[in-house]
Amino acid sequence: MKSIHLAQSIIDPFPADAQQLLVGVSGGVDSVVLLHTLKDVSERLNVSLHVAHLDHQIRSESSNDAAFVRDLCGQWDIPCYAESYDVAELAERGKLSIEMAGRQARREFFQRIAEMIEADAIVLAHHLDDQLETFLIRLLRGSGQSGLAAMRIHTGIWWRPLLGCSRGQILEYAQKYELRWVEDQSNNNPVFLRNQLRHQLIPQLLEINSNIAQKVAGLTQQIQVEEDYWQELITQQFNDLVISCNDGLRLRRGDLLVMHPALRMRMLREALRRLRGDLQRIEAVHLHSIEMLLTGQRSQAQLDLPGCWVARRYETLWLRDVAPKLPERFDLSLPLPGELELPDGRILRSSIQDEQEGESTNVAEYSLALLPHSLRVRSWQAGDRFEPLGMTGRKRLKNYFSDCQIELEARLKTPLLVSGETILWVIGMRRSNYAVAGKDKGMILRVELI
Amino acid sequence: MKSIHLAQSIIDPFPADAQQLLVGVSGGVDSVVLLHTLKDVSERLNVSLHVAHLDHQIRSESSNDAAFVRDLCGQWDIPCYAESYDVAELAERGKLSIEMAGRQARREFFQRIAEMIEADAIVLAHHLDDQLETFLIRLLRGSGQSGLAAMRIHTGIWWRPLLGCSRGQILEYAQKYELRWVEDQSNNNPVFLRNQLRHQLIPQLLEINSNIAQKVAGLTQQIQVEEDYWQELITQQFNDLVISCNDGLRLRRGDLLVMHPALRMRMLREALRRLRGDLQRIEAVHLHSIEMLLTGQRSQAQLDLPGCWVARRYETLWLRDVAPKLPERFDLSLPLPGELELPDGRILRSSIQDEQEGESTNVAEYSLALLPHSLRVRSWQAGDRFEPLGMTGRKRLKNYFSDCQIELEARLKTPLLVSGETILWVIGMRRSNYAVAGKDKGMILRVELI
Repeated sequence: MKSIHLAQSIIDPFPADAQQLLVGVSGGVDSVVLLHTLKDVSERLNVSLHVAHLDHQIRSESSNDAAFVRDLCGQWDIPCYAESYDVAELAERGKLSIEMAGRQARREFFQRIAEMIEADAIVLAHHLDDQLETFLIRLLRGSGQSGLAAMRIHTGIWWRPLLGCSRGQILEYAQKYELRWVEDQSNNNPVFLRNQLRHQLIPQLLEINSNIAQKVAGLTQQIQVEEDYWQELITQQFNDLVISCNDGLRLRRGDLLVMHPALRMRMLREALRRLRGDLQRIEAVHLHSIEMLLTGQRSQAQLDLPGCWVARRYETLWLRDVAPKLPERFDLSLPLPGELELPDGRILRSSIQDEQEGESTNVAEYSLALLPHSLRVRSWQAGDRFEPLGMTGRKRLKNYFSDCQIELEARLKTPLLVSGETILWVIGMRRSNYAVAGKDKGMILRVELI
Repeated sequence: MKSIHLAQSIIDPFPADAQQLLVGVSGGVDSVVLLHTLKDVSERLNVSLHVAHLDHQIRSESSNDAAFVRDLCGQWDIPCYAESYDVAELAERGKLSIEMAGRQARREFFQRIAEMIEADAIVLAHHLDDQLETFLIRLLRGSGQSGLAAMRIHTGIWWRPLLGCSRGQILEYAQKYELRWVEDQSNNNPVFLRNQLRHQLIPQLLEINSNIAQKVAGLTQQIQVEEDYWQELITQQFNDLVISCNDGLRLRRGDLLVMHPALRMRMLREALRRLRGDLQRIEAVHLHSIEMLLTGQRSQAQLDLPGCWVARRYETLWLRDVAPKLPERFDLSLPLPGELELPDGRILRSSIQDEQEGESTNVAEYSLALLPHSLRVRSWQAGDRFEPLGMTGRKRLKNYFSDCQIELEARLKTPLLVSGETILWVIGMRRSNYAVAGKDKGMILRVELI
């Protein structure tokens, strides 16, 4: 009965229209049973099978495994692609664990062969007990919800038809059909976290609940379908949040705030993922601090998080890999009459005239007689104050910038026209009450931003 | 520094406008530290504290614990409500574990006192390591996603301000302020699952990841906010799914089918929860089978699930606690002329007339001369066929019912007017071609459903 279930589990999630399958076979019981069930099904469904085997070169007997797989494929008349790869070397070079390196090498090898033979699916022998191990590893590594979705039966080209079958069912099948296989000695190596789980932790869990693998499998299925749901929402809505993505990523704060917190958190994770490539080292506390940034009193504030920098700039949430480099301060002399190139490339032109021509955002006119000092153009300094035209009393320039919602980075780029200590013009924004030109006030200094 | 964090953690999630707090104090270090931090904060915030202690009577020294708590409250000048309760007896009577019974008894006691003193919150001393234990217990018991949300800082009247603090921080605080407490010997009883986890499983997990409690706490926070999200969707949309709830629960199949599978599963869980009161013994495989019922080829099918019965009836998903009792079969003689009371209470009246008056859904007329047998009214039998008026050839009554989307349960209630083996009328629905009355066909038998 159980071996029927095994074949059924293969047929049930069979990828639509599959014609060519590439089966990853290590030679262990799982992959030998997988190949055997597929051999049976594929004959009936007229699907052609191919086998791929990667010799990891980490155990002395690993070349025997390759020979075993080749032999088996020969007997079963299935084309076999075997290669060997120095996984230990990859692990050292890529600073990976041996397990991770092996996984990466296998994936790359399987994908290469699959492309070559135009396979519709790469079939792997992961089963229910592997799924429990994967779930626990993700949990122990502190993965979020998304990681607990663990392995899926289908993801892209990958297919794991045995994901619902227990190791016990697989062994039973192997015995029923008198299959031979090789034992992977590395399964006993306690250095591997997976083996620690398999030999120490999981037996304890089974003592408490002998059905734990099935229970966790049910849980991962629920998480998977909910992850799909969130992913669809993100796909539908994320781009609407984006103001720009040419200098990091700028998101609309208001739109984030009206979202349900659960969706907002998902969107923030997505933003971090797009920016950083992954979410490694990002923890709940970091997301919480971005939430605080978004909802807090301060209209401009920033955070350094692992692998990224996140700032609120008024109604924008700005994410970058690192904090932006602050523009350099400047202090330049304005020739009179003449032209000055500002640090941002714009030109400031001064001229002396008899008559007023009128002011605008980019033009200011002053009574030359009221300007005792030479004119300079400089960047903002702490403590700067000025008296905006039309207002009485001096205002902190910082507060003026804040009223205009000028971002911190833009403040340092904003040129100020000064005469001695007096700010005449926040150039391109607002002139001061000082030295206003007028009839009978003599010669006019006209300054134009071009 | 860490003890500041502890006081901060109390203030941070302080329930809005709380004036009266009831603190659950066992006398163990966690609740003594909780009370000490609250004492400090409540003086500053002008909140009054009360203590509740329940003696479980399961250990010989438990009355000493009560005395300890009373003493402590005396010293700190806090009103103390202590009672004792035979938890072992409750466990036996309610078929609960001692842990569950203790929890239930405490909850009831705390709620009663809280009501009496009009407390705004009941404060419990659960901390970060308790949260890890709760999470693992839920995982081991095979809880779904919702269970893994574990404990919340705030739920209703309950408040757990220490949920973000580790046992280590709590001990450090206790030592710093030279607090005294009692050791709960039941914490060492390996019969309790929680103690198995604490002494065997969790130390292993900590070896693999010393930060596991923080990681799991972050995970539970994410799950909590997403549970809230789903709950809001359910609250908004569930009632629109309901066709009726007077005989179990009938839901619109079409609306369920167009939902995202993740939301559909949540709605199905909600339906089961409303029907059964909880989701105990409901597993992923059961939800999957309901999904199959909804999407399958069969327009009528049913499932027995733990504690409930679920059926598809055409475009309805029908959930009941048990399968509906099938109506009893009947076979009654129709007096001619005369009246017959049908099992559903309706009346069937027969009369003999000279003239036709015309047929309708509830009236059929027959040529009396063409009816050789006495008339009977009976329920449907396997194999019944009839020739609907206007059609040629006999049709299986089963298929006729199916074409009309008559639900299985309604079929057995539908009365059939028969003469011998011949079905004259599916009463109230369709008459047959047989014995049609007409001019020059003699006396008329008129049958009316009232």
